[in-house]
Amino acid sequence: MRFLKLTLAYDGSNYVGWQVQPNGPSIQAEIEKAIAAVCGQMVRVTASGRTDAGVHALGQVASFQIDTRLEAEAVRRAINANTPIDICVYEIEEVSASFHPIADAKRKTYRYVIQDGPFLDVIQRAYSWHIQAILDVESMRQGAEFLVGEHDFESFQATGSDRQSTIRTIYSLSIAEMESNGRHQIIIEVEGNGFLYNMVRNIVGSLVEIGRKRRQPAWLGQVLQGCDRGLAGMTAPARGLFLVRVDY
Amino acid sequence: MRFLKLTLAYDGSNYVGWQVQPNGPSIQAEIEKAIAAVCGQMVRVTASGRTDAGVHALGQVASFQIDTRLEAEAVRRAINANTPIDICVYEIEEVSASFHPIADAKRKTYRYVIQDGPFLDVIQRAYSWHIQAILDVESMRQGAEFLVGEHDFESFQATGSDRQSTIRTIYSLSIAEMESNGRHQIIIEVEGNGFLYNMVRNIVGSLVEIGRKRRQPAWLGQVLQGCDRGLAGMTAPARGLFLVRVDY
Repeated sequence: MRFLKLTLAYDGSNYVGWQVQPNGPSIQAEIEKAIAAVCGQMVRVTASGRTDAGVHALGQVASFQIDTRLEAEAVRRAINANTPIDICVYEIEEVSASFHPIADAKRKTYRYVIQDGPFLDVIQRAYSWHIQAILDVESMRQGAEFLVGEHDFESFQATGSDRQSTIRTIYSLSIAEMESNGRHQIIIEVEGNGFLYNMVRNIVGSLVEIGRKRRQPAWLGQVLQGCDRGLAGMTAPARGLFLVRVDY
Repeated sequence: MRFLKLTLAYDGSNYVGWQVQPNGPSIQAEIEKAIAAVCGQMVRVTASGRTDAGVHALGQVASFQIDTRLEAEAVRRAINANTPIDICVYEIEEVSASFHPIADAKRKTYRYVIQDGPFLDVIQRAYSWHIQAILDVESMRQGAEFLVGEHDFESFQATGSDRQSTIRTIYSLSIAEMESNGRHQIIIEVEGNGFLYNMVRNIVGSLVEIGRKRRQPAWLGQVLQGCDRGLAGMTAPARGLFLVRVDY
């Protein structure tokens, strides 16, 4: 038996998310079907984490075990040949039997793209959250500082989650600005040792409250301390979120 | 009667092109339907040039005449409310009856986006041409220099075109490199006083021949002088092309 680790990118727009679900196409199902077509075996592929419907990945990691004589690189190419064009496996490597994509993940990096200002960049519409107001980026940066470090992020976890611990560490939370297609973009990038369900999207929704001047930056410190989802901002839409990298 | 000039962006992926055609949705038809919904009159909207199926625009210009009491800005907002999300009119202004969007255009700027290297950036797949080879950008830049200035561009015109003159002036042809989503992109931007049918896509296809090391940079000088479409490279795919700006 061999153990293979994949690094892949996908455009989540047309999927119900990573995980196999009865109500539509999933990334996982597409990869598993492709592996079955290539190797003649139906295997279970496990990702570093399930991305939700509409969320994109630039560097998702997934692994599976299989009994095949094919070289790893040939498996990678064959998976790509058998998956839709919006999924691309760009790395494959042999790992030990003890490798676990969820348990062994040391650090994850997410990116969130906001377009602010009155006009939508139509080209990026499926890959960003468009907010008609002009956001105050400097205040958002000040608010972001309250979240960096080890904290209880319960206020930013989707209600109904049942994680044992809601303590996580955010190593960095940067907010950059750039022009894309003549429009202003705000790029939020967050690195941490792990993230609760919807945590990045809830952080982004809260930062936008500050960017809109509805809240002061220090409000985020109070939200953290309150440990109550009702205190934080809205959940930002899935389409602006990218899983950039998983480090092991 | 009033004369209105629009500046608009669109994602060309889902259209047969700017021009109304029987075989599918066009940008022009969507705009004309929206104006009819807003003002109750079916008018003809003329663009600075027809973009082909799959070609995008960041700053297309179009104009029409209409009899309405609505303020121009109200017309703009109402057009946006009545067009699909992949079309966005972001400027409107009153112009004189003598304004003609084709005849009065002084300068046009196009951009072409190439992804080179083995792996596709899935997020940009509908907005770029993916070439698996790694292109030699410095040679492409040397080749581009042969095209700048006033020349007979007949070799870069689609066969079957019937323009009276094939003399055009390219003011600048720049080739930049950037990273996008962890992938290498080559951005070709060309400004000129006008472009023949398929001229930008044929120039890009020819620059790629040089980037692939199949041709030397000086070959482009010979292609120009030959005045024969058969001499130049292939027509680059529509999906990488953006009409960036039209100056009057």
